[in-house]
Amino acid sequence: MKIKDIAINDVEGFKSIGIDAKLRKGDRENLALIYAKDGAIASGVFTQNVIKAAPVVYNMKNIDNESIKAIVINSGNANACTGEIGYQNTETIAQNIAKYLNIDSEEVLVNSTGVIGVQLPMDKILNGIEKICTEIQTHTDKHSVARAIMTTDTHPKEIGVEIEIDGEIVKIAGIAKGSGMIHPNMATMLGFIVTDVNITKEMLDKAFKPTIDKSFNMISVDGDTSTNDTCIILSSKKAKNKIIDKEDEDFNKFKEALEYVNTELAKMIAADGEGATKLLEANVINYKNEKEAKILAKSIITSNLTKAAFFGADANWGRVVCAMGYSGVQFTPKHLDLYFKSEKGEIKVFENGLPIVFDEDKAKEILLEKEVKIIADFKTGEYSATAWGCDLTYDYVKINGSYRT
Amino acid sequence: MKIKDIAINDVEGFKSIGIDAKLRKGDRENLALIYAKDGAIASGVFTQNVIKAAPVVYNMKNIDNESIKAIVINSGNANACTGEIGYQNTETIAQNIAKYLNIDSEEVLVNSTGVIGVQLPMDKILNGIEKICTEIQTHTDKHSVARAIMTTDTHPKEIGVEIEIDGEIVKIAGIAKGSGMIHPNMATMLGFIVTDVNITKEMLDKAFKPTIDKSFNMISVDGDTSTNDTCIILSSKKAKNKIIDKEDEDFNKFKEALEYVNTELAKMIAADGEGATKLLEANVINYKNEKEAKILAKSIITSNLTKAAFFGADANWGRVVCAMGYSGVQFTPKHLDLYFKSEKGEIKVFENGLPIVFDEDKAKEILLEKEVKIIADFKTGEYSATAWGCDLTYDYVKINGSYRT
Repeated sequence: MKIKDIAINDVEGFKSIGIDAKLRKGDRENLALIYAKDGAIASGVFTQNVIKAAPVVYNMKNIDNESIKAIVINSGNANACTGEIGYQNTETIAQNIAKYLNIDSEEVLVNSTGVIGVQLPMDKILNGIEKICTEIQTHTDKHSVARAIMTTDTHPKEIGVEIEIDGEIVKIAGIAKGSGMIHPNMATMLGFIVTDVNITKEMLDKAFKPTIDKSFNMISVDGDTSTNDTCIILSSKKAKNKIIDKEDEDFNKFKEALEYVNTELAKMIAADGEGATKLLEANVINYKNEKEAKILAKSIITSNLTKAAFFGADANWGRVVCAMGYSGVQFTPKHLDLYFKSEKGEIKVFENGLPIVFDEDKAKEILLEKEVKIIADFKTGEYSATAWGCDLTYDYVKINGSYRT
Repeated sequence: MKIKDIAINDVEGFKSIGIDAKLRKGDRENLALIYAKDGAIASGVFTQNVIKAAPVVYNMKNIDNESIKAIVINSGNANACTGEIGYQNTETIAQNIAKYLNIDSEEVLVNSTGVIGVQLPMDKILNGIEKICTEIQTHTDKHSVARAIMTTDTHPKEIGVEIEIDGEIVKIAGIAKGSGMIHPNMATMLGFIVTDVNITKEMLDKAFKPTIDKSFNMISVDGDTSTNDTCIILSSKKAKNKIIDKEDEDFNKFKEALEYVNTELAKMIAADGEGATKLLEANVINYKNEKEAKILAKSIITSNLTKAAFFGADANWGRVVCAMGYSGVQFTPKHLDLYFKSEKGEIKVFENGLPIVFDEDKAKEILLEKEVKIIADFKTGEYSATAWGCDLTYDYVKINGSYRT
């Protein structure tokens, strides 16, 4: 697998664009379109919040349609808690995209992210749609789509990889946005992945959904699961590999690359959590089963107290142990070792269930880095799990104390 | 029921004291003793964290002993994650209290709160124990005990009530401490209630435990459940009422007063959450069952996004709706109305599942108060639940970014 500067536009069968349709303050792009002229198969994972935004309800109905040709995304407004009118607006968006691209409205998926409970500014959006459907034909900035889906993100999130399957080049490119309301089980995150791999719809589903559980569902910024979380993959099937129609070696190769793409996007979201100054990675290792290892890892990176301690570069391992303790998993800490690790080195702070004396200055040096790992070694099994989060900072409070007004 | 300036010392059969045993920085009291010379029956509720501090394990073993005569509490150190030595230290504390008070060590309950993972400074504690057991005989400051159990609390938490049962005066007095790691199911909170009601041990348990579920278990500061949470009630049985030995009218009267005491203490803890500027109360009303109403209410006051919005006095009802949406409870928002309320009035912001236009200035005025209610009226049943929390502020981050060092 090669990590390359591959954007959506570089994957055969796809075009993309982001434009400024005046949907947000500032002059950044805020309306995005991904276009698969010859159609694509799709797979999607959606929020588990019972309050689902209108576009989520719409997409859940359409994700398994035989052909998807367009994904439209607006930022600035989530179209959530907007009732019948909100749903009609989503349909109107799909119909207008279909009209201007000369495709069927059932081939369109619609996504919104931003403020909850306000109706979409449909005049601006419809003007934007006309413009975006025209401009996509000639647009050349392949990074504008990633910028257009941002809300409080501080930078766009993109990744691309190239793999060889059946002797043929296969590309995968993805974009994502965070950055508040990020919590396991689809937080306020949008992720869009495109690939040209030749694969059946059934195998695309089989490859995509488990990788979400190990990537986007293992991050947390603040424990809040949003109304709009969505991750969608499209495949144009234009690569020349023999079609993947079973769980063979080619399938595994594709799935592995896809997991890498999703994980990197997920980590970018965690690191760019609202107000975050650092990426936290919790590794629970040598545990007796994977399910509980995941719960333990998530509990660490969801703990406000732990997150605030890491903001202060405070080697407060007690909060890490405590967070695992209240996770709901029944374990004995008898064999538990705990390490903190970063580019500055690794330090053991807890051994066989007990604190040990460690060099506080060294610990501080390690924790001051931008990426910090918390390793909990249970020494009681062979399963492991990883979760990602960020520190809790003054800026998180600032951003969220005045988001709406 | 009369709310009175009744402290532990005013309840027949009890004495209390707090002294400075140099267990914390500053010159506030940090070692506390509650003493029931003629013995008391006890009931207790303890943390559900699998990592239980040594004194919690010790108390769980001793809470049902026939007679309890002393509760000792130190602040500054939680004696959690301290292994065998930590447990032995707890036993040593109990033995020394027993020695100096000339009672049995099994009549002593031990509590610790503060930093995790550091062994207790036993020399200071044992000196303090000798002193406190002597001074309690003549000590007159009835509020020192409430001050001594504080950690990051900004003020002591005390309440007392007087009721009439069977024509006789019965008193209940309680103290508590917060204020980080506060989350439903016994967070880092300690609560000690004493009463002189004449009651059987069985009925004391029956009265006490359900009131915890409606009070201390319905508050959250930060979603972190600590290793040390404890709430204990002692009854000296010295009041002259006919003994309560069944769930009759007298029982209900006592239970109601006890629930009031616990709820007021719980609210004090929530309002004094680390860094908090205001008390948030979530009322879920007219719901179809109590269990889910509780989950919904808790989810609101646990949401970081909601908490940060209220810090900014932002009428962001979307986050309230969203927090209920991801609570795990399956509901339809079709009939849901939402109100914000404080001493400045009440405002409806959401009606029958949809946002409504409201006066933003009025909403701001309401939300700027020190106590704000969030009322979610489901209009689909007759059950309700209340939970309490606080806003998420810069100071929470500050306190917890540098607690240990």
